[in-house]
Amino acid sequence: MDIVTELSKVIHSGRISTAASVISQHNHDASYHPAADPDVVVFPENTKEVSGILSFANKHGIPVTPFGKGSSLEGHAIPYNGGISLDLGLMNQLKTIEETDGYVVAGAGLTQFQLNDALKKHGLFFSVDPGAEAALGGMAGTNASGSYTVKYGTMRDNILDMEVVLPNGEIIHTGSKALKSSSGLHLSGLFAGSEGVLGVITELTLRVHPIPEATVAVRAVFHDFEEAVTAVVRLRTAGLDLARIEFVDAASVAHVNQFAHTTYKEQPTIFFELNGETEHLRHQIDRMEQLLKPFEVAEFLAETDPAAQERLWDARHNLAYYYIQAAPTKQMLVTDVCLPISKLSDAILHARQTIEESGLEAGIVGHVGDGNFHIIAMVDFHNPAEVSAAKQLHAAVVDYTLVNEGTCTGEHGVGVGKKKYQKLEHGAAYELMRTIKRAVDPRGIMNPGKLVD
Amino acid sequence: MDIVTELSKVIHSGRISTAASVISQHNHDASYHPAADPDVVVFPENTKEVSGILSFANKHGIPVTPFGKGSSLEGHAIPYNGGISLDLGLMNQLKTIEETDGYVVAGAGLTQFQLNDALKKHGLFFSVDPGAEAALGGMAGTNASGSYTVKYGTMRDNILDMEVVLPNGEIIHTGSKALKSSSGLHLSGLFAGSEGVLGVITELTLRVHPIPEATVAVRAVFHDFEEAVTAVVRLRTAGLDLARIEFVDAASVAHVNQFAHTTYKEQPTIFFELNGETEHLRHQIDRMEQLLKPFEVAEFLAETDPAAQERLWDARHNLAYYYIQAAPTKQMLVTDVCLPISKLSDAILHARQTIEESGLEAGIVGHVGDGNFHIIAMVDFHNPAEVSAAKQLHAAVVDYTLVNEGTCTGEHGVGVGKKKYQKLEHGAAYELMRTIKRAVDPRGIMNPGKLVD
Ligand SMILES: Cc1cc2nc3c(=O)[nH]c(=O)nc-3n(C[C@H](O)[C@H](O)[C@H](O)COP(=O)(O)OP(=O)(O)OC[C@H]3O[C@@H](n4cnc5c(N)ncnc54)[C@H](O)[C@@H]3O)c2cc1C
Ligand SMILES: Cc1cc2nc3c(=O)[nH]c(=O)nc-3n(C[C@H](O)[C@H](O)[C@H](O)COP(=O)(O)OP(=O)(O)OC[C@H]3O[C@@H](n4cnc5c(N)ncnc54)[C@H](O)[C@@H]3O)c2cc1C
Repeated sequence: MDIVTELSKVIHSGRISTAASVISQHNHDASYHPAADPDVVVFPENTKEVSGILSFANKHGIPVTPFGKGSSLEGHAIPYNGGISLDLGLMNQLKTIEETDGYVVAGAGLTQFQLNDALKKHGLFFSVDPGAEAALGGMAGTNASGSYTVKYGTMRDNILDMEVVLPNGEIIHTGSKALKSSSGLHLSGLFAGSEGVLGVITELTLRVHPIPEATVAVRAVFHDFEEAVTAVVRLRTAGLDLARIEFVDAASVAHVNQFAHTTYKEQPTIFFELNGETEHLRHQIDRMEQLLKPFEVAEFLAETDPAAQERLWDARHNLAYYYIQAAPTKQMLVTDVCLPISKLSDAILHARQTIEESGLEAGIVGHVGDGNFHIIAMVDFHNPAEVSAAKQLHAAVVDYTLVNEGTCTGEHGVGVGKKKYQKLEHGAAYELMRTIKRAVDPRGIMNPGKLVD
Repeated sequence: MDIVTELSKVIHSGRISTAASVISQHNHDASYHPAADPDVVVFPENTKEVSGILSFANKHGIPVTPFGKGSSLEGHAIPYNGGISLDLGLMNQLKTIEETDGYVVAGAGLTQFQLNDALKKHGLFFSVDPGAEAALGGMAGTNASGSYTVKYGTMRDNILDMEVVLPNGEIIHTGSKALKSSSGLHLSGLFAGSEGVLGVITELTLRVHPIPEATVAVRAVFHDFEEAVTAVVRLRTAGLDLARIEFVDAASVAHVNQFAHTTYKEQPTIFFELNGETEHLRHQIDRMEQLLKPFEVAEFLAETDPAAQERLWDARHNLAYYYIQAAPTKQMLVTDVCLPISKLSDAILHARQTIEESGLEAGIVGHVGDGNFHIIAMVDFHNPAEVSAAKQLHAAVVDYTLVNEGTCTGEHGVGVGKKKYQKLEHGAAYELMRTIKRAVDPRGIMNPGKLVD
């Protein structure tokens, strides 16, 4: 059987490709995980085509790996078993903007940047902001989050409904347009974070928020990171309504200065954002300064100028790319643990020590308001000693986290890279996840080898 | 085989009962649905006993219905197939209060009132507040919500982790203590709202929040409910940070006046709560008055006195009981639809007309900030004409809602009462829910006949 001939019965042959350039765009993600070619790449234009592709693949047991923007960091979108890479890129319509209800309906291929560009003139924004251009379907696939999660929640928290094509080609909706529901089993939550192993998300209904009247960015520089993290915990428990709380260690501030041409003090720093009504913000900033009094704050700078704010957040968002630019012959390995914030300070201390023992060049950044932090390590994957040091580093940080009641991945997901920690983290629940996977995808065609075995 | 003898091998016989009084406490819920006796009631003290009970039941195919406080409204906890009623009442320990991280760990039998009593002295509160005394396990079972949901989310949104005993007796954890995670399939979301059909929740880790510095309750009285609902939509889209938004129709205000001895104007009313910093609240109340200017507000009263506020919220919470007191020979039927708020005003108009056509005595109240409203109808279940009118009323309201992109149940859940709407609401997704149910509970012992068939 010739896959391409068979596929052309359900999708126009001009949108089926085996060209080397297309194959190689779909054989890797943004991580160090080794590439693997799909046999064929398809670019469906609508849900019916996705359904046809899956029916066909299911009948013949052909693996299907959904592909958003390929920005994931644990090999999620790499088709290790070959088969079909299903690229949602053409399904990128923004179908509805509902201002009164505060939701949008969009195709899975639309990116968060495209969505926010379109929302701006309506005075609305979408809050989930991973640091790479990502498609909404991919973001639902990994249950992405970002700097605004501390105030607005994760991808999962912002999904009202999804249209999903099941492995057998059946088309379902996982929710409704209502803001809450107790009807039936919670399929939106199940498919969010399912990394393409249960089906293909074709359309999403997502909550959006009014752009706040005003925002202030605060850069607070500390003498050491323990002080910085303790200060964050203090502000959180005081009930301060912070929209973003980002930790950047000294090494990472140095990268920012080098590549964004800033002159920030190269010390552990927290970038905050507060948003809301102008009057209220002024009051909150005062309270924040008050609450930070007992800490040794080397610098406290509130930026109200939008351009300065944008510079600061761009710098934060581009941090991974600065690390990549600084070490062009190496590849990036990023850890992604998340713990209760009471345990964060010790965890970052442990991470710092483990980095030093590893001999690797690495920085620490994090969405610390949620207890989530990353080690960004640049690794020469041709050097076995560095590879082994990097793997040990990752394992040590995960082990520490699981003992301390956290999770091996706060936002990047499991893919292939964190599969080995699943049994340890979930215990007997891992078996239940496998049971669910088998029930939903009995032939095992959906993104085999990822998330669960 | 004698069930009691067999059960006494896994749980002390003093906590197994077939006494008529105990059986009849467990043969009904708070609704009009007909009673049905369990064969036996067990009161496990710990998770190991629950596991033993389920292993035994699973082996012999004996139905098990988890029982919290029996306050559900659609027959959820009624054991229509007999078997074991598993009462979590003794598993009501509050095990951990983590102030820094803002979570508690509690047994499934603890009630939300008990939890809030214990939290008060720590300056914390738990936000999910259904209008009846309910157990945390039962609240997770129905994905309960309440007046604070508009600000703090539903039960599901506040669960970090649950300990669950699966039908085969296996004990799992559905999450961790981290505030967010992208690890594995989202089991916490799946078990929340699963109404006991997938397993027994034995312990919950729940988010709690700092008690705000100040609260204000506002009572805004309108000339008609369309104005009231339109005003709510206006305040929501203006980004006002409202903690509670409760609609009470004229008939319901009359019930409040009669039973709570208040003298509120008997017109459509919205009860609001704002909470936060004193200064900010003052400013928000001003903005609220400003935003309400274009509407015909008959009365606008901001209560800062705690006793007056408590009276107001008690009145709102007790409303269902006032209806029951007013019609002692009848039983309550409550609808629970939830729609996008842009469609709420028309939906309530439709509901009002449908009530009038039905000839039933009924009021409308609702958590309108989420688009959720209830018709409380008092029905004589010995009068076939009234029963039929009530059933028609319910069906008409659900049909209207589903056409308008809503859900048949915003918070009460499905039980037996809303099972007939599941296929219509979920379409092909209903089959997937059944697949998951069969996979997790292959012998079908868990709360048979509820939620999914
Ligand atoms: C520099 C950098 C910074 C980053 N920062 C963050 C961050 O702050 N927060 C964060 O959460 N992540 C971050 N990431 C990771 C990445 O951006 C996210 O995981 C993102 O959600 C992936 O989206 P994507 O469209 O690229 O998905 P892909 O990589 O294409 O796919 C991701 C997974 O989802 C599946 N999938 C894709 N589309 C669908 C669909 N339509 N239906 C079903 N399954 C689908 C794929 O099969 C795959 O398993 C970062 C990555 C980089 C490179
Ligand atoms: C006057 C009144 C007002 C109400 N107001 C609201 C409201 O505002 N919002 C709202 O959401 N609800 C409301 N309800 C409904 C009810 O209070 C909720 O559904 C509540 O969540 C039920 O809790 P319970 O402990 O009584 O559960 P039960 O009625 O005992 O059980 C409910 C369901 O959960 C299952 N269950 C119970 N415990 C467990 C467990 N440990 N593990 C697994 N499954 C379990 C049961 O089998 C059953 O299916 C109201 C009810 C009344 C009578």
